[in-house]
Amino acid sequence: MRFAKGHGTENDFVILPDPDAGVTLTPGLVARLCDRRAGLGGDGLLRVVRTAALAGAAGPDAAGAEWFMDYWNGDGSLAEMCGNGIRVFARYLLDHGLAVGPEIAVATRAGVRLVRAEPDGAITVDMGTPQVLGAGHAVLAGQPLTGLAVSMGNPHLACLVAGPLDGFSLSAPPGLDAAEFPAGANLELVRLAGAGHVQMLVYERGSGPTRSCGTGAVAAAVAAALAGQDPAPGTAPPPGHWTVDLPGGRLRVTLDGRSSFLSGPAVIVAAGELSRSWLSGPVAGAVHSSPTL
Amino acid sequence: MRFAKGHGTENDFVILPDPDAGVTLTPGLVARLCDRRAGLGGDGLLRVVRTAALAGAAGPDAAGAEWFMDYWNGDGSLAEMCGNGIRVFARYLLDHGLAVGPEIAVATRAGVRLVRAEPDGAITVDMGTPQVLGAGHAVLAGQPLTGLAVSMGNPHLACLVAGPLDGFSLSAPPGLDAAEFPAGANLELVRLAGAGHVQMLVYERGSGPTRSCGTGAVAAAVAAALAGQDPAPGTAPPPGHWTVDLPGGRLRVTLDGRSSFLSGPAVIVAAGELSRSWLSGPVAGAVHSSPTL
Repeated sequence: MRFAKGHGTENDFVILPDPDAGVTLTPGLVARLCDRRAGLGGDGLLRVVRTAALAGAAGPDAAGAEWFMDYWNGDGSLAEMCGNGIRVFARYLLDHGLAVGPEIAVATRAGVRLVRAEPDGAITVDMGTPQVLGAGHAVLAGQPLTGLAVSMGNPHLACLVAGPLDGFSLSAPPGLDAAEFPAGANLELVRLAGAGHVQMLVYERGSGPTRSCGTGAVAAAVAAALAGQDPAPGTAPPPGHWTVDLPGGRLRVTLDGRSSFLSGPAVIVAAGELSRSWLSGPVAGAVHSSPTL
Repeated sequence: MRFAKGHGTENDFVILPDPDAGVTLTPGLVARLCDRRAGLGGDGLLRVVRTAALAGAAGPDAAGAEWFMDYWNGDGSLAEMCGNGIRVFARYLLDHGLAVGPEIAVATRAGVRLVRAEPDGAITVDMGTPQVLGAGHAVLAGQPLTGLAVSMGNPHLACLVAGPLDGFSLSAPPGLDAAEFPAGANLELVRLAGAGHVQMLVYERGSGPTRSCGTGAVAAAVAAALAGQDPAPGTAPPPGHWTVDLPGGRLRVTLDGRSSFLSGPAVIVAAGELSRSWLSGPVAGAVHSSPTL
């Protein structure tokens, strides 16, 4: 079984080239591949499969998109979309001559997304319309925070803060207002660093602090674009270009008054083959040999 | 540049086949390869190089060992030996026809080590003579612990404890008696689970809690073999066979009154090639783009 590994601002992925959907992917195999010590390691897995080979999986609008990003979280659960993942996916297609740029339509479980290879090497994805939901509240390490609730398909609370971000601890999960965020949310700490420039840290729902988060970067730009206002739900952020610095690198976000665009590096680290002995091995050796620790 | 990835009880390694020492390894490249998000990911790196190609690196006794394990820690520093690493190294040699088993002499910075492929698929390494140093003391989460100080080349404090190991927290570093351990030590929590059978958790000096530690497993077996005694420095542990269960899997330790032998699984996960664009990329993108977070 062939694989590649790639990352976008250190959001990293196992890539499985499987054009004809010949691989039987199970949650157990995905989790094993994404295991950082017993497998290849990754935040998630991107199966590269022809849309036509997985009829139905990509939704009815996918006919014009040759390739389907079959995205799985590292724990083996399915996910609809991943902003950094789809940029790495597009890099893989381009590197392997599976698609011709600069514009590629990629089918996902959240619909077809347009991805573009930029002249400077960056990969940009259309992330859709950010939905401003109004003010939201959280408590972080005993400190109350007010921010902007934004939906990018998934829920965010982007909090503009003063002072350097290393003054904040994300080692414990933030306490989100349960009435405002019944399904939880990602929390972004956002610091205005200059004109059109923010720095951000993110605590991802279910994952903890991560090196990068594509939807979070867009939410941070939206909050920064509306800084000093108390925007009503449904407010459209003003158009603009934003540079977003994260622990894992630099992303750029463009707001055009209608949609949002996420741009940044997407890197293929390596490619190869899984060993047959590993593939035929136990699903998780540690579980079998030390169940009673 | 070719690579493989492997692990022994979830102590995982980037393997670089470089028979003729053609690769210029630098601390920066090693750290980048071992980076779990921007690189391949590993606790350390094993360069597979002919002893003759790196004359002098392996010490004067290495003439009879065709292969030198050029071992690096994941942070890019050099290390002398690694019990799980050398077992994975031997698996790689055997899988690729670079050595004929069952016995292989492998040169390391700590001298030549004998490794053996067992009929059941395990790989065993001669870990040398454990040095019993007498009683040692630590404080873990406010709780005083007494254990046995053992040197395996590196220092250990192996503490026999009662009750299930999940009652102990290794989230903060243990406080070791500074007079007893001037250079620090790995701390093992060891629970007797039956005749010749222990469970263990380890906090590794400089790394924190890890899934497995080969020298720690031997130290745990030594402490268990001397349970109920107050052994003087230099005491030889009684011969015996020990099963050691760790979070990352099961190891077996044999004490023969003279040396110690560590045995267990060693798995090659995958093999492939690093991408040229990654190799020519920046050493650490995040450092350049977000220096002020």
